[in-house]
Amino acid sequence: MDKIFTNEIKDYIGKEIVLLGWVHKLRKLGGISFLVLRDRHGIAQAIIEKDSENTKLKDLTTETVIKISGKVAKEERAPHGAEIKVNTIEIISPVKEDIPIAINKKEMNVNLDTLLDNRPITLRNLKQRAIFKIQSEIISEFRDYLKSQDFTEVFSPKIVSSGVETGGAEMFKVDYFGKKAFLSQSPQMYKQIMVGVYERVFETTYIYRAEKHNTSRHLNEYMSLDLEMGFIDSYEDIMDLEEDFLQSLIARLREKRGAEIELLDIQLPEMTKKIPRLRLREIQAILEKEFHEKCLGAPDLEPKHEKLICEYAKEHLGSEFVFVTHYPSKKRPFYVYDDPENKEETLSFDLLLRGLEVTTGGQRLHLYDDYLKKMKARGMDPSEFSDYLSIFKYGMPPHGGLAIGLERLTARLLNLDNVREASFFPRDINRLKP
Amino acid sequence: MDKIFTNEIKDYIGKEIVLLGWVHKLRKLGGISFLVLRDRHGIAQAIIEKDSENTKLKDLTTETVIKISGKVAKEERAPHGAEIKVNTIEIISPVKEDIPIAINKKEMNVNLDTLLDNRPITLRNLKQRAIFKIQSEIISEFRDYLKSQDFTEVFSPKIVSSGVETGGAEMFKVDYFGKKAFLSQSPQMYKQIMVGVYERVFETTYIYRAEKHNTSRHLNEYMSLDLEMGFIDSYEDIMDLEEDFLQSLIARLREKRGAEIELLDIQLPEMTKKIPRLRLREIQAILEKEFHEKCLGAPDLEPKHEKLICEYAKEHLGSEFVFVTHYPSKKRPFYVYDDPENKEETLSFDLLLRGLEVTTGGQRLHLYDDYLKKMKARGMDPSEFSDYLSIFKYGMPPHGGLAIGLERLTARLLNLDNVREASFFPRDINRLKP
Repeated sequence: MDKIFTNEIKDYIGKEIVLLGWVHKLRKLGGISFLVLRDRHGIAQAIIEKDSENTKLKDLTTETVIKISGKVAKEERAPHGAEIKVNTIEIISPVKEDIPIAINKKEMNVNLDTLLDNRPITLRNLKQRAIFKIQSEIISEFRDYLKSQDFTEVFSPKIVSSGVETGGAEMFKVDYFGKKAFLSQSPQMYKQIMVGVYERVFETTYIYRAEKHNTSRHLNEYMSLDLEMGFIDSYEDIMDLEEDFLQSLIARLREKRGAEIELLDIQLPEMTKKIPRLRLREIQAILEKEFHEKCLGAPDLEPKHEKLICEYAKEHLGSEFVFVTHYPSKKRPFYVYDDPENKEETLSFDLLLRGLEVTTGGQRLHLYDDYLKKMKARGMDPSEFSDYLSIFKYGMPPHGGLAIGLERLTARLLNLDNVREASFFPRDINRLKP
Repeated sequence: MDKIFTNEIKDYIGKEIVLLGWVHKLRKLGGISFLVLRDRHGIAQAIIEKDSENTKLKDLTTETVIKISGKVAKEERAPHGAEIKVNTIEIISPVKEDIPIAINKKEMNVNLDTLLDNRPITLRNLKQRAIFKIQSEIISEFRDYLKSQDFTEVFSPKIVSSGVETGGAEMFKVDYFGKKAFLSQSPQMYKQIMVGVYERVFETTYIYRAEKHNTSRHLNEYMSLDLEMGFIDSYEDIMDLEEDFLQSLIARLREKRGAEIELLDIQLPEMTKKIPRLRLREIQAILEKEFHEKCLGAPDLEPKHEKLICEYAKEHLGSEFVFVTHYPSKKRPFYVYDDPENKEETLSFDLLLRGLEVTTGGQRLHLYDDYLKKMKARGMDPSEFSDYLSIFKYGMPPHGGLAIGLERLTARLLNLDNVREASFFPRDINRLKP
């Protein structure tokens, strides 16, 4: 007797099989019971007519772990067009308390806090687990695509003695054997070190931001898909790479995660070969002209502006993605490369998808003297960054990179309202459990 | 003119090419210079005879980033059997200070502290970077193998409110917006939650141990290759899986990392189909009989004993790996499954390789009542673990898992004396930089 999975039953019509899983649904009608069993591949319907087996169902509740054996029969109305006529049921693990949330409904209709407070249970919901199957595929494609492009995976420490981005502000403090340490807010310095070793590197890692934001866009611990590449000709090389990755990603999701996409009832963005690349100033001009938003000259886009420009790009440029380039130098970290044609702007970019920034990237300075010059112009003390600066004393090629927020990308691809819905166990200012 | 890599030159004999990389070595002999260029694929020799180009080399030091163009010629004595007759040299990034360590030697002959203090430079050494190319391949195979076995990748939080392993002892404290939090010492609880969702899960993640050990075997931040699987028949299923993974790993390393294995001059362990599985008691009896070590009845193996039993297994059992099973219940965490045939022992195992423990695993309790019973017998208060215990109220299948220490596995496969050599930027009680 073959031990099979729910998605295989259609291939076993007329055969005796064994299934293991959870009682997803149970309905008793006199001497007959209908049971839906859930396993890692989905659900299957079973029908129990034998008295001896129906007796075992007497006090059974959903989420009980069971083993059933029986014969598969054709049944058009059941999932996969087949059902199991049960011969025996064995209870493997009983349920001790009634489950507090009906997770076997397509929509659980709970609020976000309830959803997240009860993650060990709510993740068992079919739609919830589909979200993270897709997320798992996204990170796999990020790694596989970059390996195909000759990138090497690296690991940088998360316990660090200082930060590059904000010099210790907005970093979580760790007591490291009595010494002051922080949780890393970015692998930036380490990625750049590694360009000197492997030229092209990536890291898929948690990073930490002790920001007190409590919005639908922010997490305090999030998964950053980081890459850095040397010997670039231009910051455009990095956008080219991301474009190519995203094409490959969308194709892979359609191919491998069709069932989850259908279950979640979502439309993935169409990938035109070229994602529009607009300068911040150009976008601000569009926002003024088309939406009467007074923002020309502002150093960044407001969340509202990100939404509007994405709507505009979808309608007029045929893309749900938009690259925003040339952010002002004063709003970007010191290591970002200024545009030689206009030193007020940088060769940097953000990528927006469906109204949200999902990537930040750009070219970095690579010459030691350029770092000193820029730091001095900003009134920064280079001696405070001596470890970081020492990298550039020993020959670094022109390079740049980017970081994708995995939860943000997942949320926007799947049209989830809150980035927390794309995190298994999100951490925010109020949430440290489960 | 093709832009190629050093490992491709043999395919371009007689052709004009461009190479980008670092000056690895430079030797000037009157009007001729010999230059070895390093890129991400290795090294290539170039010969410079033109006065105009030799002039550019006047003050040039190693690690300068350059671009050379020229014609490839056959040269038996050079790497890849070819060299480049240079037409032009262009300096891309100069070196600001002479490099403090001769990284272009096969052996750097520096002590461990110097090696680690100067990681941004020493990682450029060919042998050093080969170590981490192999490590990157190990983690890729862990993920690829498990995905082929229907495992789902998951991400658990590293900032946690409490620990399962030791209840807060030996955990790093984090100030989380004024609340007390810890760095996770194990994804154990989350992996088990996820067995309830996906049946088979893995995570490749940093974990944190605030242990004050300062040995060649311990790191305070290390990469844990974690997996957990449901619906097992026995704890032996987990060893079977690891055995199969290791076979697949060794084959992949031989196939894809032959150049690095040769450069490092190491022998990978031969994988016999079955790794010997010996009970702790059996091993202690062997240690007494063969090595006169008085250890029968001790709750664990000393480091010295791990070395001796590995020597014994290599000689008498034909394996450099050894599974040690049936550790005493009192030395293992409460969630470990006791052997029904002898409640003093557990259905758990360690995997030793070349004298070092590289994996810990075993079957876990899966029934709520069994947890309560075991905690009470140990004098533990179940209410302190209510979040963890609640998982088992709602139907959990028999399950188990393991955790491989990536740096330890790398170190033992490559015969590195100290686990720190297998960490890009190790963290120990004295080391928080770079």
